Amino acid sequence: MTETTSPLATTAPAARDLANAIRALAMDAVEAAKSGHPGMPMGMADAATALFTEHLRYDPANPAWPDRDRFILSAGHGSMLLYALLYLTGYPDIDLDEIKKFRQLGARTAGHPEYGHAAGIETTTGPLGQGISNAVGFAMAEAHLRARFGEALVNHFTYVIAGDGCLMEGVSQEAITLAGHLKLNKLIVLWDDNRITIDGATDLSTSEDVGLRFTAAGWAVDAVDGHDAAAVSAAIARARLATDRPTLIACRTTIGFGAPTKAGKSSAHGSPLGAAEIEGARKALGWPYGPFEIPEAILDAWRAAAKARAAEGKAWGERFLAAPKELQEEFENAFSGFIPAKLIAEINAFKAKISADKPSVATRKSSELALEVINKAVPTTIGGSADLTGSNNTLTKGLGTFAPGSYEGRYVYWGVREHGMAAAMNGMALHGGVIPYGGTFLAFADYCRPSIRLAALMGIRSIFVMTHDSIGLGEDGPTHQPVEQIASLRAIPGLNVFRPCDTVETAEAWAVAVASQTTPSVLALSRQNLPTLRDAHTDVNLTAKGAYELLPAAGGLAEVSLFASGSEVEITVKARDILAHDGIRARVVSVPCMELFAAQEQAYQETVVGNAPCVGVEAGIAMGWEPILGVPTYFVGMDGFGASAPAPELYKHFGITAEAVADAAKAAIGKIG
Amino acid sequence: MTETTSPLATTAPAARDLANAIRALAMDAVEAAKSGHPGMPMGMADAATALFTEHLRYDPANPAWPDRDRFILSAGHGSMLLYALLYLTGYPDIDLDEIKKFRQLGARTAGHPEYGHAAGIETTTGPLGQGISNAVGFAMAEAHLRARFGEALVNHFTYVIAGDGCLMEGVSQEAITLAGHLKLNKLIVLWDDNRITIDGATDLSTSEDVGLRFTAAGWAVDAVDGHDAAAVSAAIARARLATDRPTLIACRTTIGFGAPTKAGKSSAHGSPLGAAEIEGARKALGWPYGPFEIPEAILDAWRAAAKARAAEGKAWGERFLAAPKELQEEFENAFSGFIPAKLIAEINAFKAKISADKPSVATRKSSELALEVINKAVPTTIGGSADLTGSNNTLTKGLGTFAPGSYEGRYVYWGVREHGMAAAMNGMALHGGVIPYGGTFLAFADYCRPSIRLAALMGIRSIFVMTHDSIGLGEDGPTHQPVEQIASLRAIPGLNVFRPCDTVETAEAWAVAVASQTTPSVLALSRQNLPTLRDAHTDVNLTAKGAYELLPAAGGLAEVSLFASGSEVEITVKARDILAHDGIRARVVSVPCMELFAAQEQAYQETVVGNAPCVGVEAGIAMGWEPILGVPTYFVGMDGFGASAPAPELYKHFGITAEAVADAAKAAIGKIG
Repeated sequence: MTETTSPLATTAPAARDLANAIRALAMDAVEAAKSGHPGMPMGMADAATALFTEHLRYDPANPAWPDRDRFILSAGHGSMLLYALLYLTGYPDIDLDEIKKFRQLGARTAGHPEYGHAAGIETTTGPLGQGISNAVGFAMAEAHLRARFGEALVNHFTYVIAGDGCLMEGVSQEAITLAGHLKLNKLIVLWDDNRITIDGATDLSTSEDVGLRFTAAGWAVDAVDGHDAAAVSAAIARARLATDRPTLIACRTTIGFGAPTKAGKSSAHGSPLGAAEIEGARKALGWPYGPFEIPEAILDAWRAAAKARAAEGKAWGERFLAAPKELQEEFENAFSGFIPAKLIAEINAFKAKISADKPSVATRKSSELALEVINKAVPTTIGGSADLTGSNNTLTKGLGTFAPGSYEGRYVYWGVREHGMAAAMNGMALHGGVIPYGGTFLAFADYCRPSIRLAALMGIRSIFVMTHDSIGLGEDGPTHQPVEQIASLRAIPGLNVFRPCDTVETAEAWAVAVASQTTPSVLALSRQNLPTLRDAHTDVNLTAKGAYELLPAAGGLAEVSLFASGSEVEITVKARDILAHDGIRARVVSVPCMELFAAQEQAYQETVVGNAPCVGVEAGIAMGWEPILGVPTYFVGMDGFGASAPAPELYKHFGITAEAVADAAKAAIGKIG
Repeated sequence: MTETTSPLATTAPAARDLANAIRALAMDAVEAAKSGHPGMPMGMADAATALFTEHLRYDPANPAWPDRDRFILSAGHGSMLLYALLYLTGYPDIDLDEIKKFRQLGARTAGHPEYGHAAGIETTTGPLGQGISNAVGFAMAEAHLRARFGEALVNHFTYVIAGDGCLMEGVSQEAITLAGHLKLNKLIVLWDDNRITIDGATDLSTSEDVGLRFTAAGWAVDAVDGHDAAAVSAAIARARLATDRPTLIACRTTIGFGAPTKAGKSSAHGSPLGAAEIEGARKALGWPYGPFEIPEAILDAWRAAAKARAAEGKAWGERFLAAPKELQEEFENAFSGFIPAKLIAEINAFKAKISADKPSVATRKSSELALEVINKAVPTTIGGSADLTGSNNTLTKGLGTFAPGSYEGRYVYWGVREHGMAAAMNGMALHGGVIPYGGTFLAFADYCRPSIRLAALMGIRSIFVMTHDSIGLGEDGPTHQPVEQIASLRAIPGLNVFRPCDTVETAEAWAVAVASQTTPSVLALSRQNLPTLRDAHTDVNLTAKGAYELLPAAGGLAEVSLFASGSEVEITVKARDILAHDGIRARVVSVPCMELFAAQEQAYQETVVGNAPCVGVEAGIAMGWEPILGVPTYFVGMDGFGASAPAPELYKHFGITAEAVADAAKAAIGKIG
């Protein structure tokens, strides 16, 4: 037998050979891009090979198969691991060309995996801890849909690869403890236990017994040599048998495995290895092929493995067709993302009743009333609150509790885990088949902001119910009083921020939010009671226009326009009366959603803004109002933090009153000051 | 012996009686305020009594004694526990009148403890998880100062009372694992293990073995009956003996202890108990006194206990006076909060050298250069990074590592714990004697936003070094590219957000930040190289004015003013040249800090803004620029998320170029479009 440079010349590729294909692509793509993270893909290539060739159920030819297993690369900087896998297994979106264009403008192969760029990318990761927390939501959605539709239609695993960074982030602890509590046995996390972070060895900054921490959270814990694909595969097989707990598999790995001088070091993490190091790695790995060259035998082996893994998809298709027609329809409706058409009529009926009854309630209560309608009409909503159910008014009758081992309920008690909740909600939305909404106080939007941002970046339907939306919450004081949160949420691109003024607008906001398949929403809701201002019913969803004239000027052209959102619209209505008494004609414009208003046609916007001087009122900072109000800006609101006192006193103390608005209006039109 | 309604009539008050005084005040104050949280103070009264009468070293007559033990009420909603303790032990700021004004406008006794309202309130708490994370910073500051000044001057404990909510928040996990890693043996946490959250029993949302989790994090764990003051005291005594780990003491308690029907239930948590329940509690507790009535014997006993605890303060004073004069001075300088006067001269020398050398470096590198000067001149700085040391450029020569058991170093490897870092930095700043700064990527400001907000609310000197401040970071893509972060940080009241354009401005920003004793700062710094634009030296700190004319119009009055911050100032300078070529006179205004600019006198602001049409340039959203630029707003920047590609391509792709700025300028002055 002659010497051969390739171990593959005469035998079928071994798992290590398959893994080396990942390593080589990662090295080469990072080198070509002159930036990126080779270390993690090289370290986890063996474990990923075990997962993708022996366990994960997926079908590159049918990547949206609803019952596929989900794979989440929580350590998103290792994106080349995912791209290499998608190419090797034959996902059409990622061909070799895309790999070569890694990190270039317009490529599907962005620096971090971006949801929507290619089939097979289940979520956007990169901000650490988000992926593993998304995964908990994926597993929750799976569990719920399994309970709803039965195991024949829904029965899949959620697999995660997470690094030390993911596990050090607080959000992951929230998600992990929730997953353990909920007994999400179909969630399996492969931890890339390489003991290296950017700054150096992990023992520079942590000494935690990670396994014990997961045990404390109710997980099964396993540990293997991450470079022994067979051992990893066996551990996954064991994990799949768990019946009452998720599993953590610690995969002991060497970052940059194969790199002659950088393996096991921080230097392998986030920079190209360099030509010499790559040459050395090729030798050490027994990989004599050129850059981006994958020998046919290895590509064939990968494709064959993928084909084998896809077989389940065909079996599922048969099961689906064998299911009762009604169930098929329900299933398809759920995964279509569309909401039942009847909802619009029901929301309109609700609006009509409210306009007639004119209740005076807090918009958080209005939200509950609207949710009673929505949750009845839309079977895919899953609600919850981060331990503020009675304050957020997120629970409606008959939802049932999503409880450990009993997942048919549609209400989640998230615990005091705002960030974990938001990240898991994103996972639910990404999974499909459910529409998640979850509540906390608006001040604590800050706690979940990284996940809200990702929802916006991904364009997914996560709905955040955020109550106690101003100093109107009263005595709890400045730590709990949003002042800058509404502005700072409006700053996030691609997020609809609603601040409705009464029950009708709240119902309209909800109608938009549940129908917005590609836009997340925040509903900022009052603690305090507000009158019904929309007392003349119309089927038109005025909130969907973002802003509209609520009250015209009486007795002629408006001399001044008063703009407000939420709880301050009532104040502008009173100010309009004061001004009328003083002989000044004022109109009132309600602005429940600036983003939707900015999306209207120019002509509509101009009509609503009008030609009269403008005054804005909101119990928050002025930032963000200037495009509507102009500069200099006449604005009645907050310019610092709040205080602890009963709400009515605070409104007086901070000068957010009808009298102050009337004064500002007079100033704006030059009649005083 | 006749029957007596009071157990105190004939004997010295027992610990339970002292604790009942807390309970009664909490019930009464919440009832009078018609809002608040009686359950936690009633549950933890016995444990707090044990701590305040037998362990905590404090002196109500000298509350700022630097070596006092620190007490952090992490479960801030239980504020009446703290206020009751401060009153009973004789802190002059909190008299009975203040207790009666609980949660009223202007009272020191806000709904949640507000730092600065009264001596004895060491930090603002309420947002859950913050206090315990602050406490880790307190303990770090203590450890460092102990290493620096010796045990005779610094040797105190940090005690925390935390609830289930604090422990469920992810931020606390970050802090806990760090504290364990760092072996902070003088940190002792009393966990109010009452098994109740707002939504119900904790087992509704968590099943975690909390003790095991802390064990995994390297803590000592103890568990006692939280209503047995002697047992709690013994546990604290044991904890104080720990030499290489912090201690968690699980205090098993009943929320609302004493309330006849609400004890042990969520209903005791966050609402007044009601007259009947209070009457029943008074009976059950054997507390026959009227509302707000504390019998003399009990008040005397509390005051006597406080006096005993204060004895250590006097001993410390003697030790301090016995210390070498030089050490005394150094100590006083450190705790004064002032920075050495020589720093200004050194910064000016650095600026002069830079203006002459004109280096082209990234402002993150400029920051490192400035820090080399500052860290040498200011011995109280403690730097660090959340695992991005080499990227944030936060480490300077000779700082040394703040390491487990060896605390003299001034650099902290925070690990991948942005939120924990920021919260602990706040604790360090609050402790005094140190000036903390810490780094992460600007995009991940979102991860630590709740703590940044609290730094601003408290008015403390936490300095956040946030690099990679725009699409200029390039290939890592939209998850890592700040777009809305600068605007959303500017939205936080009381926070200085600096975005310097070159090394000189970076040094000036640092000079302001380290000297701002009552204002936190964010420095937004570029990844990419920037030229030195400030090439004419002046000793005046122009950045301290927030904005200033960098370049006047050449050849006459300006026809247009170009405003920019950070990396885009260079672009406006180039645009000015393009415009000059086209015969248009443009001036350039650098805007390194909008908050400081807004604080200048009106006349200065008007001069800087000028009378010409304005164009703004920033690689972020326009929000926040309108007050300077006017409406309609001519702005060159971002209006959505970024993308993954090399930075120069991204600037072109998103149209943030000198040509685009010149075009915008022409549009602004009506010369095109």
